[in-house]
Amino acid sequence: MMNEKQLKNLVKNNIRQLKPYSAKEIKCSIKLDGNESPYALSSAFVKKALSLPLNRYPDPEAKALRKEISKDAGITPDMIICGNGSDELISCLIATFGGPVLYPVPTFSMYSIISRTLDEECIGIPLNAEFDLDEDKMLQAIKKSRPKLIFLSTPNNPTGNCFSSDVILKIIRASKGIVVVDEAYQPFASDRGFMPMLKDFPNLVILRTLSKIGFAGLRTGYAAASPVIINELNKVRLPYNVNSLSQASAVEGLKQKKEIRLNIKKIVSERERLFNGLCSISGIETFPSEANFILFKTRSADAVYSNLLKRGILIKNLSSSIKGCLRVTVGTEKENTAFLKALGIITKNQSAKNRQEA
Amino acid sequence: MMNEKQLKNLVKNNIRQLKPYSAKEIKCSIKLDGNESPYALSSAFVKKALSLPLNRYPDPEAKALRKEISKDAGITPDMIICGNGSDELISCLIATFGGPVLYPVPTFSMYSIISRTLDEECIGIPLNAEFDLDEDKMLQAIKKSRPKLIFLSTPNNPTGNCFSSDVILKIIRASKGIVVVDEAYQPFASDRGFMPMLKDFPNLVILRTLSKIGFAGLRTGYAAASPVIINELNKVRLPYNVNSLSQASAVEGLKQKKEIRLNIKKIVSERERLFNGLCSISGIETFPSEANFILFKTRSADAVYSNLLKRGILIKNLSSSIKGCLRVTVGTEKENTAFLKALGIITKNQSAKNRQEA
Repeated sequence: MMNEKQLKNLVKNNIRQLKPYSAKEIKCSIKLDGNESPYALSSAFVKKALSLPLNRYPDPEAKALRKEISKDAGITPDMIICGNGSDELISCLIATFGGPVLYPVPTFSMYSIISRTLDEECIGIPLNAEFDLDEDKMLQAIKKSRPKLIFLSTPNNPTGNCFSSDVILKIIRASKGIVVVDEAYQPFASDRGFMPMLKDFPNLVILRTLSKIGFAGLRTGYAAASPVIINELNKVRLPYNVNSLSQASAVEGLKQKKEIRLNIKKIVSERERLFNGLCSISGIETFPSEANFILFKTRSADAVYSNLLKRGILIKNLSSSIKGCLRVTVGTEKENTAFLKALGIITKNQSAKNRQEA
Repeated sequence: MMNEKQLKNLVKNNIRQLKPYSAKEIKCSIKLDGNESPYALSSAFVKKALSLPLNRYPDPEAKALRKEISKDAGITPDMIICGNGSDELISCLIATFGGPVLYPVPTFSMYSIISRTLDEECIGIPLNAEFDLDEDKMLQAIKKSRPKLIFLSTPNNPTGNCFSSDVILKIIRASKGIVVVDEAYQPFASDRGFMPMLKDFPNLVILRTLSKIGFAGLRTGYAAASPVIINELNKVRLPYNVNSLSQASAVEGLKQKKEIRLNIKKIVSERERLFNGLCSISGIETFPSEANFILFKTRSADAVYSNLLKRGILIKNLSSSIKGCLRVTVGTEKENTAFLKALGIITKNQSAKNRQEA
């Protein structure tokens, strides 16, 4: 009979070294860690789900959903592939094109996690001091390593800023591989995004998700690209990857354009208030954001994080990857006010403590 | 600017050679091709979905669902991992343990499709004349190729029979790798399945799905194994892989035990009637089944398939992989009667035609 050590030795090397992605639920009254929308859409849109024949497999081609998305995105349905969240599409892209996989750091962690899971080489190029793409370093790395895939999240998670469009365009032109522009947070940004550029660049893939605009529970994302690329990704995608309830709810959900737009407006306006509030707290450095979250730096991130949690407020502690940094998702007006108040008290107490100790 | 050929050259070799899995929807009035349950459960179970905060991500650990499953399966929740269909778990298993991947042929096509997608070596060992595992050939292949993973679907899709338990046990004992017993169709079989053996064999993984018992639209499957294996699979699983609607609906759905059991009973009873009906049609060889479908052989499978489709009845044409064979899913009493009637007429016409031509 096999013992535990023998069993673990069966696991591929690249997997054995990984830790499970920590996505445990932490109980708290104010949840500002996951970059979700604080607004649940009126549940009417999900009612259609009640009449679905759930004994049947979902539409393997997600035709109605791709059609609905194509209207919003201004592209044809054959340029769209839907995924069980954009995570699944990142996985499909890496399985289809392989590595090296290049991305700036810090950025969305799943690019590196999934690359390592699929045993593909990862190359992380540091962002510059303004958290923008380092043009020279990126172009040098492209020339040297010839990455099969480049992931650019803009607005970038977790820094919040958009990368310079002209540098992104230079990267797309310089790359002999696929460039994936991940626009998960684009709905909160001031620019239009890269969708109109698809026709000009056959090697461009755009990722979008419904998760940030009120539908995180549906796990529905999509990639937009030339039909040639979509066809290859469809070979790798599992046939029934988006379930019936999510397909139907996403179709109905996307039709609630007025409510979605209104919620985005509220989030953007609250982001500005949250930004100003953070800037007014001494001892905190706040970074500008075009997303639905804000990155900020404190002298003692771990203490701030755990003190907030004690007060029932959960944010994201990034200090292990970006020194001193925390990320707060834009919540409702009330949540943001509670967060700012708590943070003000915590930092005040800490500086008092620091003065005493000095 | 990259042209189409250059773009295709970027695709990994193993992917370029694949064709997209053909899972197009074919319009028809009687759908007996997908091994779904013909019975939709009363939709009350999905009502809980209406009250979910869909702006929030699903529970990444699917705690409530794993708890509900653990009651049915008689194992602890730490021995369970849920997937977006068992397809996703097959993919996790192959990404975790790698190849060579060994399975009997013919069997469920996703074992080989996903192995090739992940660029892992596949070894298919022909079943014997009774569609049972060929003990000698299997054991020889295990000795020679030392597979990291063995997939055994029992009852086997598409042949319908259960493999001999004693041969399965010999394979589990002989294997230095992981043996996955895929029990997708176990609810329709007369035996108890391998769940009680988990405690005896650390290298055993059992796959189960909700798809065949009335919930194909939810895309929810699970793997049961030792906590050591589950922990490794959790490293590979994408964090929010089962959406909120499916998690909640699956929990409520699984509670409808009486209705589920009743539907299974009806399917098993209809399977016997369908089997007898098929046996009574001359020119058709019918294979015994412990699943919710029946494999049968005709002199001209393609013609039978397309003639049935003309009459609005869709079944699965397997003639390209198993000579002359078709697979029919057990439908409702009415559907099965319509199918048998149509098949009777079609085969009668064909033998008349054959006699004329002779």
